Amino acid sequence: MTEYQPTAPYRGTRDFLPDEMSVRTQVFHRLYDVIERFGFRRYDGPQLEPAEIYEAKSGEEIANQQLYTLTDQGGRRLALRPEMTPSAARMVAGNAGSLQFPVRWYSHPNCHRYERPQRGRVREHWQINVDIFGSEAASCEIEMFELIDSMMRSLGADEDTFVIRVNDRQVLSAALTELVGVRTDQLGEVFALVDRWEKYDSERLAADAAEIGLDDKQFAGLTDVLAAGTSLLDELPAEVTGNSNVVRALRSSSAGLIRFDPHIVRGLAYYTSTVFEVFDTSGENNRALFGGGRYADLAGLFTPKQIPGIGFGMGDVTLFDFLDTHGLSPAPRSEVDVVVIPVTAELDDAARTVARTLRTAGLRTSVPLEPRKLGKEITRADRAGARAVVIVGAEEWQDGTVTVRDLGSGNQRQVPHEEAAETISTLLGTDR
Amino acid sequence: MTEYQPTAPYRGTRDFLPDEMSVRTQVFHRLYDVIERFGFRRYDGPQLEPAEIYEAKSGEEIANQQLYTLTDQGGRRLALRPEMTPSAARMVAGNAGSLQFPVRWYSHPNCHRYERPQRGRVREHWQINVDIFGSEAASCEIEMFELIDSMMRSLGADEDTFVIRVNDRQVLSAALTELVGVRTDQLGEVFALVDRWEKYDSERLAADAAEIGLDDKQFAGLTDVLAAGTSLLDELPAEVTGNSNVVRALRSSSAGLIRFDPHIVRGLAYYTSTVFEVFDTSGENNRALFGGGRYADLAGLFTPKQIPGIGFGMGDVTLFDFLDTHGLSPAPRSEVDVVVIPVTAELDDAARTVARTLRTAGLRTSVPLEPRKLGKEITRADRAGARAVVIVGAEEWQDGTVTVRDLGSGNQRQVPHEEAAETISTLLGTDR
Repeated sequence: MTEYQPTAPYRGTRDFLPDEMSVRTQVFHRLYDVIERFGFRRYDGPQLEPAEIYEAKSGEEIANQQLYTLTDQGGRRLALRPEMTPSAARMVAGNAGSLQFPVRWYSHPNCHRYERPQRGRVREHWQINVDIFGSEAASCEIEMFELIDSMMRSLGADEDTFVIRVNDRQVLSAALTELVGVRTDQLGEVFALVDRWEKYDSERLAADAAEIGLDDKQFAGLTDVLAAGTSLLDELPAEVTGNSNVVRALRSSSAGLIRFDPHIVRGLAYYTSTVFEVFDTSGENNRALFGGGRYADLAGLFTPKQIPGIGFGMGDVTLFDFLDTHGLSPAPRSEVDVVVIPVTAELDDAARTVARTLRTAGLRTSVPLEPRKLGKEITRADRAGARAVVIVGAEEWQDGTVTVRDLGSGNQRQVPHEEAAETISTLLGTDR
Repeated sequence: MTEYQPTAPYRGTRDFLPDEMSVRTQVFHRLYDVIERFGFRRYDGPQLEPAEIYEAKSGEEIANQQLYTLTDQGGRRLALRPEMTPSAARMVAGNAGSLQFPVRWYSHPNCHRYERPQRGRVREHWQINVDIFGSEAASCEIEMFELIDSMMRSLGADEDTFVIRVNDRQVLSAALTELVGVRTDQLGEVFALVDRWEKYDSERLAADAAEIGLDDKQFAGLTDVLAAGTSLLDELPAEVTGNSNVVRALRSSSAGLIRFDPHIVRGLAYYTSTVFEVFDTSGENNRALFGGGRYADLAGLFTPKQIPGIGFGMGDVTLFDFLDTHGLSPAPRSEVDVVVIPVTAELDDAARTVARTLRTAGLRTSVPLEPRKLGKEITRADRAGARAVVIVGAEEWQDGTVTVRDLGSGNQRQVPHEEAAETISTLLGTDR
């Protein structure tokens, strides 16, 4: 007995059949388009990178447990990239001499992490990475927030569905030390506590705070700081807020796009000041859609040159959860616009001739591959989403004409075959 | 001392910086567009697949030496896909119940093979895969040839630069057995000899033929068969040629697109009849650009259902070698269309307001991130490929106007800021 291989994809990875792929492609192209209108240029890099660049740079969890590694036949230890930033850092460092900083770059790689698959988590995900490298100016922050807002709106999302929550780690540090009395050596643990603040109840948070060494008054102070919103900024010395790009953004004309929120810290170690997360406000997807932040030194692993940057990574899984929740996913594109049907097999060549003209006119056009009755072929064309068929009959073809039928209305018209494309465009209107 | 990680990508893989990426994107989008005009729909699948599906299916060379494999933490043996066909077969088999055959599918995955890097060979390449699954009709062959011809022409290639060489393995088998007297058990070795026919001199070919057991007369016969071209078909019985889709294609109106050539056999084991290769005729790239063929049973590893198919895989490396040789690579797209320059930092918000209007009008627009003198900023905009700048000055802005300058002619005009987009479009003409 033959034993067949399973047809399901490897756990935590996904097959994208044409309908789903069409939805994805439409969404991604809208995003690429918006990103490029802001002057960002696309780059790409290898799937495989030396394993060391992740082990040296990322948090321990990724390096030790989530990384897919292999050793090639030359004994080189490699990893499937778990994220794009180290690759981008490598490229920017390697080309720093010829790049005109600041540069705006974006990419759309697939990244691998050995996760336990669950809602919102997969092992292979696709992430749009957008970064500005080589500038410390607050304009970068403002531009990032404008870009994110434009990207979300290009997908049909409005201010009722999402919010950009923004914080500055340095502002939070100052608030913790100066207003709450947190010691410098406690800051790391308090940041980690803030990171899980919205996930736990206050009893558990209080217990965790006590374990870090905060007393009741400090816990109350911490609670106040996190709840303060923008008013927190008035309580801090001007030398702290005056240096914050987040504060500058809050004073720019783009302030309305963001909400200052001291809860946001982001786990990844390389963010040094600005951090932000885009949240789905629907409640149903109670998590960050995606986020990012600013790093003071992007490429320290590769070069002594200090290259600051700011960027974010937008993953596909949470994005499509969001779009589905809010009914914003576009419909899949139809298979074709037009099917050209020869009435007999002798007219196959004629049908292909007509199809060529239609394709040249930009119409997605197919010709049946196997002989089938006309009625069946029309049903099939309808099911494939075609909006018109062109019927090629023997006598008509001798006269150089074909029949164009609008599958929506059922109307049909006999026209010279060279005019079929024009007739179809007229029949279908302009919205193809 | 800090030791820095190397900035070069892993051997045999490539970084694509924005200029190169822009060239690639333009080329690929033209190809996607043509493929979709033929009614093909895009799909995608995971980078990682169970290693067994390659070890079971592909030639030995790939399975044993060229495959990148790893074992995940669950003990699952995985491979980075070396080609897309097994993934496609898996998906088609798994969804056979809901697909309406024949289906036209395409994809554009990156594939990994552990090769010794050299001209035309890398370890990670990008391959456009185009297939028709579920039909044995000759219309499939004809459509493939038409599609390939259209794809090549969409890139600016004409009949002087490439040729589609086509053969039918069954026709060649019949010619070898019936005209040369090759025994059935010798066929595999003779096919392998034919595969290297054009690479060796006749002395070596004769020696190899003798080793297989062909006598001098048979070697002469083999030489004649391979040199015969279309006339070979007249020497074969009608029951052989009558069943050949290649012969049907040669008798269709698309015959002019192809050249029958008995030399073409293609190494991969799963091709069963039609095989074809697109050759660069320039001589400088003396190898197949890409190729494909027909398989009688695509998904035998996954399902008892017999699914025939025909397809090809177009790799990026040889394709760009071809385009470069013939001067057909498009120029990289500029970084932006327009740069909006505020004369002082106080006008940053104003500049961003103008930029928003321009982006809404479809213009790729940037605003400088760091303050710089106007003259420097204009030089920089010019270097970034911008065709116009919009200068936002304090007094003008109070009047609601800005200055639009065409960087090509140097002409400039002061206009109400809401009209900047229109002015730019007029200045730039329609070809943006």
